[in-house]
Amino acid sequence: MKEKITEALKSLQDRICRGLEEIDVKAIFEEEIWTRNAGGGGRTRVIQDGNILAKGGVNFSAVEGPMPAELLKTSLGTDSSTNKEDLSFYATGVSIVLHPNSPMVPITHMNVRYFEMSNGEWWFGGGIDLTPHYVIPELAKDFHLRMKAVCDRFNQDFHKRFKNWCDDYFYIKHRNEMRGIGGIFFDHLNSSDSSALAKEQLLEFIIAVGDSFVPAYVYQVSKTKDLSFGEKELYWQELRRSRYVEFNLVWDRGTKFGLQTDGRTESILMSMPPTAAWAYNYQPETGSREAETQQYLVKGIDWISI
Amino acid sequence: MKEKITEALKSLQDRICRGLEEIDVKAIFEEEIWTRNAGGGGRTRVIQDGNILAKGGVNFSAVEGPMPAELLKTSLGTDSSTNKEDLSFYATGVSIVLHPNSPMVPITHMNVRYFEMSNGEWWFGGGIDLTPHYVIPELAKDFHLRMKAVCDRFNQDFHKRFKNWCDDYFYIKHRNEMRGIGGIFFDHLNSSDSSALAKEQLLEFIIAVGDSFVPAYVYQVSKTKDLSFGEKELYWQELRRSRYVEFNLVWDRGTKFGLQTDGRTESILMSMPPTAAWAYNYQPETGSREAETQQYLVKGIDWISI
Repeated sequence: MKEKITEALKSLQDRICRGLEEIDVKAIFEEEIWTRNAGGGGRTRVIQDGNILAKGGVNFSAVEGPMPAELLKTSLGTDSSTNKEDLSFYATGVSIVLHPNSPMVPITHMNVRYFEMSNGEWWFGGGIDLTPHYVIPELAKDFHLRMKAVCDRFNQDFHKRFKNWCDDYFYIKHRNEMRGIGGIFFDHLNSSDSSALAKEQLLEFIIAVGDSFVPAYVYQVSKTKDLSFGEKELYWQELRRSRYVEFNLVWDRGTKFGLQTDGRTESILMSMPPTAAWAYNYQPETGSREAETQQYLVKGIDWISI
Repeated sequence: MKEKITEALKSLQDRICRGLEEIDVKAIFEEEIWTRNAGGGGRTRVIQDGNILAKGGVNFSAVEGPMPAELLKTSLGTDSSTNKEDLSFYATGVSIVLHPNSPMVPITHMNVRYFEMSNGEWWFGGGIDLTPHYVIPELAKDFHLRMKAVCDRFNQDFHKRFKNWCDDYFYIKHRNEMRGIGGIFFDHLNSSDSSALAKEQLLEFIIAVGDSFVPAYVYQVSKTKDLSFGEKELYWQELRRSRYVEFNLVWDRGTKFGLQTDGRTESILMSMPPTAAWAYNYQPETGSREAETQQYLVKGIDWISI
């Protein structure tokens, strides 16, 4: 089964890269194959200086080996009584972050992953979320409708649960704001979940999530890429990109874990924006579009009913 | 005694701000007074868009209250058997990060601090370090000579210990490189230290460290501010600034602790550069000044004998 999952994720990476190259027209992905000393490796695909995309990556990895001590400590969901020192793990996934050139086009992130341990425990995780520099409610609604559609194909409870989970996860605690307008996020999903989906179905679910990514983003790009902007919007984009940096380096479990356990730094940090800016105590003007966007960066907005 | 230490640190902040305003000529510090819900507060002083300094802060704070659980967990040096739930703490310090405009002028950081707990345990910590975008060995030597001079006034072993401690602390593990050329760093310094200095002397020591900061940086600025640079050097500066971001958000204990325990975000993140850039897998040209600088970012260089 793990071979099947791995192959499904590799094909997903291929489809997504082709889809994104079609959006961008100009840039193509450059591939780098890497191996991990302790076992496994990956295919990092990076796009830079494109027509639409300033910097982005679509990474596939499949790594394995003895369970790193840090992985046990950060309690990746197991309460098993197995002697954890003898455990080995296998983890595979596709991970994407795209930073567009235009401040009017949202940043986006997608990740789907599978994890198993030698004691038989396994689970899936993943999600997609959107980080507009300028929130446009109709576009946020379209994005969430698509996330709901893919969830509903598998379980009627998924969307509500995974939308809320996303709001909780992509939250920049020290700024008291969300990273963006959310989407869906899930983790530790296995057959003992309340949805009781079989492993095969959960695989289908994460692949369906993955395949919903390009069309959802194509729509966002098509509606925003020709919007005009100037210096003000570009500076705001820089400030928002720095919040993205803060979230990923301070709060994102995957990033922190990867950097602290000798992961492949360049692959992990492909999520960093091409540029970013910090200003002391910056406050957007009351009533500005920037202030409006900031007001939307809160948990619990029902974008579908907006 | 804690009042005396607090007053000494406040005066230090004043002297340093005056000294830096003299260097910069154009910019002056703006002060913000803040209070902490759980007890205490601070004086954040920020300089932006100066002649020499692009962005910087000289912060004083004195906070107190019940020991936060996170503070106990991160083992701030206590092995006491006191019932830790009843502990309260008092912490005061001055913390500085300066980001210059010119890529030829180094970034610098200084911090001196005092911490005590209601069980009677107390210690001092601090340090100064320099992060040039272009390492110039003679200037690195001057900086380390000054650090040695201030250490030697108090204990002949301090400089070697604190220089090595600095090399170990300001190390970007996931990049396998130091943040800059180091300096001195020390923590948990009290009278049971091998130096056996009395509390009064340790206070004098941290104030002497603090007072060595401005002259040391003035010298760096005077020797680098008129060096010419172009687009290439400015881009390299952006890339190096992003390493500064990575160190502070991923590895710096003070920053991580502050952000995760509801510290004053804007004061903590005054250490962020005004701008930064990330490029996938950037490698400076072999033999370039950028590559040369990178080669200097390793532990254990004896800058004084270079």
